[in-house]
Formats: sequence, C-alpha cells, structure tokens
Amino acid sequence: MKNKKIYFDNASTTRVDDRVFRYMQQFFKDNYGNPSSLHDFGEPARKAVEKARNQAAKLIGADEEEIYFTSCGTESNNFALWGLLKAYKDKGSHTISSEIEHLSILNPLKELEKEGWKISPVPVDEYGFVNPENIRKEIRKDTVLVSIMHANNEVGTIQKIKEISAIAKENNILFHCDGAAAAGIIPVNIRELGVDAYSFTSQQMYGPKGAAALYVKKGVRIKPLLLGGIQERGRRAGTENVPAIAGFGKACEVAAGEIDKNIKYVSGLRDKLIKGINENIKNVKLNGHLTERTPGNVHFSFEFIEGESILLMLNLEGIAAASGSSCASQALKSSHVLIAMGLSPTMAQGSILFSLGKYNTPEEVERVIGVLPPIVDRLRKMSPLYKE
Amino acid sequence: MKNKKIYFDNASTTRVDDRVFRYMQQFFKDNYGNPSSLHDFGEPARKAVEKARNQAAKLIGADEEEIYFTSCGTESNNFALWGLLKAYKDKGSHTISSEIEHLSILNPLKELEKEGWKISPVPVDEYGFVNPENIRKEIRKDTVLVSIMHANNEVGTIQKIKEISAIAKENNILFHCDGAAAAGIIPVNIRELGVDAYSFTSQQMYGPKGAAALYVKKGVRIKPLLLGGIQERGRRAGTENVPAIAGFGKACEVAAGEIDKNIKYVSGLRDKLIKGINENIKNVKLNGHLTERTPGNVHFSFEFIEGESILLMLNLEGIAAASGSSCASQALKSSHVLIAMGLSPTMAQGSILFSLGKYNTPEEVERVIGVLPPIVDRLRKMSPLYKE
Repeated sequence: MKNKKIYFDNASTTRVDDRVFRYMQQFFKDNYGNPSSLHDFGEPARKAVEKARNQAAKLIGADEEEIYFTSCGTESNNFALWGLLKAYKDKGSHTISSEIEHLSILNPLKELEKEGWKISPVPVDEYGFVNPENIRKEIRKDTVLVSIMHANNEVGTIQKIKEISAIAKENNILFHCDGAAAAGIIPVNIRELGVDAYSFTSQQMYGPKGAAALYVKKGVRIKPLLLGGIQERGRRAGTENVPAIAGFGKACEVAAGEIDKNIKYVSGLRDKLIKGINENIKNVKLNGHLTERTPGNVHFSFEFIEGESILLMLNLEGIAAASGSSCASQALKSSHVLIAMGLSPTMAQGSILFSLGKYNTPEEVERVIGVLPPIVDRLRKMSPLYKE
Repeated sequence: MKNKKIYFDNASTTRVDDRVFRYMQQFFKDNYGNPSSLHDFGEPARKAVEKARNQAAKLIGADEEEIYFTSCGTESNNFALWGLLKAYKDKGSHTISSEIEHLSILNPLKELEKEGWKISPVPVDEYGFVNPENIRKEIRKDTVLVSIMHANNEVGTIQKIKEISAIAKENNILFHCDGAAAAGIIPVNIRELGVDAYSFTSQQMYGPKGAAALYVKKGVRIKPLLLGGIQERGRRAGTENVPAIAGFGKACEVAAGEIDKNIKYVSGLRDKLIKGINENIKNVKLNGHLTERTPGNVHFSFEFIEGESILLMLNLEGIAAASGSSCASQALKSSHVLIAMGLSPTMAQGSILFSLGKYNTPEEVERVIGVLPPIVDRLRKMSPLYKE
C-alpha cells in the first residue's frame, strides 16, 4: 500500500479550510462585482470585504477601520516600512530592526538604507530572542521606527513584544510587528502587545493565498505603497481581491474560534516529534527555544549532513518539509536566522523545518520518526565529515 | 415575472469563466503547496505558475521569461513606473504620459514628481486620442519613459500605440503601455506594438481577481516594487497567489482562443445599444471614437441630468452600469478623462458607461433600450436645467 503524503510545511503555506473555501466560492461566479461599483453586483462584494475586515480585526483585537487589506504578507511588510517611514520623514530617519526578520523586512530596509534612511539591526541570542535592552541601546534622537517580528518563521521563537513596545512607547517611537507567523496561530491582541502596526496573512492560517492585512493604529499616519484608486480608504489602491479577502476573513473567524484547541493539538504533535527525533537520532540540535515557540515548529540541525539532502529523501517517502524559509529556499544559502543565532554555516546547512498544522495526525508524526533515522544514517555514511 | 439582473459593468470587472474556475479550484485544497518549496506539494503549484506564465505570454506574443506576475493591474502599473524610473535614474528623470491615464498611472506619477522626477502630461483630442506628434514635442534630453495606455477604461478609445512606440524608439526612450482595458479584449502583440513594458490584468478578461502581469522586454532593467523573497526571478517578492495566477493563465488561453468571436459578438451588441440610445433619446452624446473603441464600450453623456441618478434608477430595474471609473466612482468627481476630452463638467457628470461582455445578450440590450428613455425622461422633468 502506498503511504498517504504527509504535509509538514505549514509554515510555508497551509491547505485552505473547507469552510473557508465553501464560503469564498460565491465571489468568483455569482457575487463577482467590484466593491467600488454603485449597483447590486457591487453590493455583496463590498459587504463581503467589510465583513472580512470585521473578522480580521476581531482576530487581533483591533477595530475594523484599523485594518487595510493587501495581497500578501510581503506587501504588508513593504507597505508598513515605506509607508510609515515616508509619512514620518520629518521626524527622523532611523529604524531599529533585528537580524532575524523575514526577507520582506530585511530587503526593503536595505533599499531604504540606499535611499538615505539609517538602519540598526539588533542581534539575537542562541534561541533567537531579541533582548529588549538591545533595542533601547540603539535608540537615537532620530529613531522613528522599531520593527520586530512576533514569531520567527524559521525557528518559531516568539519575541517579547510587550517589553519591546513599552520601550518604543517610552521613547515616542513607532513600533511595527510582523505577525505573519503568529496571527491565527497563537493568540494576538494588538492592544496588549502595544504595537502601532501589525502585518498578518491569510495563507498561513488555512485561508487562501492572495490576501493579507496591515493593522495601522488609529491616528498613526502611513503613506500608501500602491497608488491609484481610493480603495482601502485611499491607503491601498487596486481592485479588492474579493474572494481571497472574503476567505481570509472567514479564516480569521475560524482561527479565532478554535485557536486554543489547535494550539493544544498541534503543540502535542510538535512535542512528540521533537522527542522522537531527540531519542532516535544522535548529534542533532533543536533550534529555537523549547517553550517560547510556535505550536507547530520543529526545527533541527543534523550534524555532518545537508538539510537539502534530507529534504529530498523525505520527499521520496512522500513527506514534505522545508529547509529554511521557503522564500529563500531556491537560493540554497545558509539561513540568515540560524547564522544570527550563532550556528556554524555547516550546522545551518544541516537543518530541517517540520512545520505542523491542524490537519496533521499522530500517525504522521510516528511515520516521520520511523523514516527519518535511517535517512540521516544513510546520508551520514556518505558524508566525508562524519566519523562514527 | 421578475426580470433577470443585467450586468453591463464588464469594464469594472468580469464574471469568472466556468472553465477558468473549474481549473483553478484544485489549488485551494489539493495542490495548495508553495511554489518555492522543494517537495511534491510545491511541484504542481510551481508548474501551474509556469504554465500560466506561458499562457499569459502567448496572449500578448511575449516570451515566458518576459512575464512577471503581480496582484492587480494597479500593482503592475505602479511597478512599471517606479521600477523603470528607478532603474534608469542615471539616464534621466523625465516622463511623458497623457491626461487620460488610469489613476494607477496618474497618482504614482504625481508622487514621483514630489520625489524629483519630471512629468509632462500630453492632452487628448475630443475622441480621447493622444496625438503621437504631441509626444514627440515633449521629448527632452532627460526623457527616459513614455507611458500611454492602450485602450481607455472609460471611453474605450484605442490609442495609436505603434506610432507612439516608433517615436519612443527613435529617441531611445522606454515605452510602457497600460493594457488593462485591452489585453484579452482586443488582439495584442507586444512585438508589433513595439512596447518595452505592458501591464495587463485577469479580472477584466473573465479571470479571477488577484492576478495581473507586467511584461518587461528582455534586456530592459526594472527594480522590484515589492522586496523580500526571490519569487518572480527576484522582481516581485511574495508568495505567488497560485490559484489566481493559474486562473489568470487559463483566462488568457481562453481569451486567445475566442477573441475574434467575442469581438464580433460583443461589438454587435455594442452597436445595437449605441443605435438604440441615439434613436430613442434626444440630447445625448456618444463619448469616445465611433470605430476605434473597445468592443464592449458604450459611453454616453445625457444632457441636463446626473449620471449617478441614471445609475441608481437603472439599478432599481436590475441593470448594472457605471459612471466613470469604478476606482473613482465613490469619490463622485467629474471624470478626468472626460474633462481632458473637452466635455463640460455638466456633460461629464451626466455620463454613463455601459460595458458589455461575452455573457451579455441581445435581449438584455433591448431591455436597456426600453427602460432607459423613460428614466432619462423622468429625471429631465425633475431637472432645473432642462427645457423641452
């Protein structure tokens, strides 16, 4: 009997929830109107977008009018950085961020630096934590923005966002938080977190690709990244992707309703897999923090061998996992996150991310625990670095 | 018996073709992987995006590697302007465009102007034509870009793109063309047109919202607008919206296969409606050109009354039309396109766009011809401007 394929790459993107897909279908062929239209075909589309805004706002404890829809997490992050920094250009040009941010933060920051803004990246410790005091040390007179991610997409480390936001607030500095790997997965309340802007996305919480959002606190100024029509109250031009936004809203509602259950279930699977790998394979290292990590994150380095090779052999067994961020995976470079955490390039190259989700089962975890040791063994025997 | 609702707002967005929706469905719940992933779930997603790239390229006569997917027409236009102008900053800072471009061209140009670029908008004649010689007159030593739309989204006027591109080429200037209202609707061959960049979008050719493309000619430099991962060969970061891109590709294939048939059918409906309005209502003016217009475009000004009022009364009859561009329709301003064509603000305010598509029927046209005269009559009787 052929084994069922196993999907352990939920940090990259998730399957769309049946309830979400059922709901969003109507917006392709029936309620296909443009939300900006003044007629009966536009009306249901407009209502769907507003309903989704309400659902997305509720998930993170925001008000509807603080939610701006975008096309993906990358756009939300680009929008946040360019939009805030341009809007507050008169106040200063210095931004503090970390070394382990997603590429959709790091690369816009590099570009902003070329255009005259100043960027200070703070380091992280061996678990991937930003020390809030390191943020404080970097604050200057011209600091306008701090941007730190909520949960890391590779090693799952959850940052001390409240402490960081308190420091930002004390110093009258804006705080943006990239919540792409957090919202819908762990509880998020933006008022408690104390952030001024928060990015989150549909495709990692069982919603469709093509929709994401940026929360912008009432009263905070931001310049649009995409210019044109007056959609999203003038802050994001372009016809709303109604089906995806509607599906995203529904996914937020579903996530809000089952988040505790999912956390309990998925972290149970996670801990089982971590235990299984630790007990069955020598010379491995769990990356990230043991408890302050996202529920589905299992990130290991396997000494002496390449993550890519493990990945390919797992794939032959019908098991999908990842090495590093999917955004960079085809570039075959060492993960900047792992390097920032102090891993050697060899250990970084030898790492695998299993990201578990609500559709995974204990049987799938057991199967991986069974299949992985002989794969690692075989690869190590072929490795010139390995001595038993 | 209640009449079936009539959708005459296809320029705003179209219903998704059944064949397109059937094909794209699989990418929500089955082949939901991330195209960047190195496993069997990523593979079908990656293949779907590449297939779509081929289909999109074929529709406009381009090569696959010249197509970059974006989230909407607005993004394609923003990407084209910022991306080309930043990439060629060393060459100069002057751009020539027209007064009737879409807001997703006009508003980025305004922003670029604030940042130091120089913009020359050329006027149009009463039909909405840009005179290519007017482009030539604006050329300066530091001109790097000409951006002129292919077909106007409000009045349907099809520009003399070949003549404009010849002038640009002679002067070694880049030429971007916004084809959002043209590709999939009229034949487009970018080699014949001679453009360096061409924007086109899914949602106006019976494809889903959430996908569009920018064609960038081989060898032409462009900087990314969205920065992050290495998707779209480093030119557009962000996880690919696989279902929408796959659907867009399919829509391109469908459009390419039936474009002649659709043009014949839809322009027949268009001419029937134009004739019906001209024959049954006095003091009306067809805007745009009689023959050089897109197949589905019927744009009229009705003297003495407001387009918005006609729209609302048509909506009560179950007929969906538009006044001006849907991107601006909730702003209730006079259309910049009509003003540029020399219409008085009153005539501009009194205009309606019926945009017909392949799902419309002769019966629907007849119904509108029957319903519209008494509506106009009633509104005129209430108008202080009107004297019989």
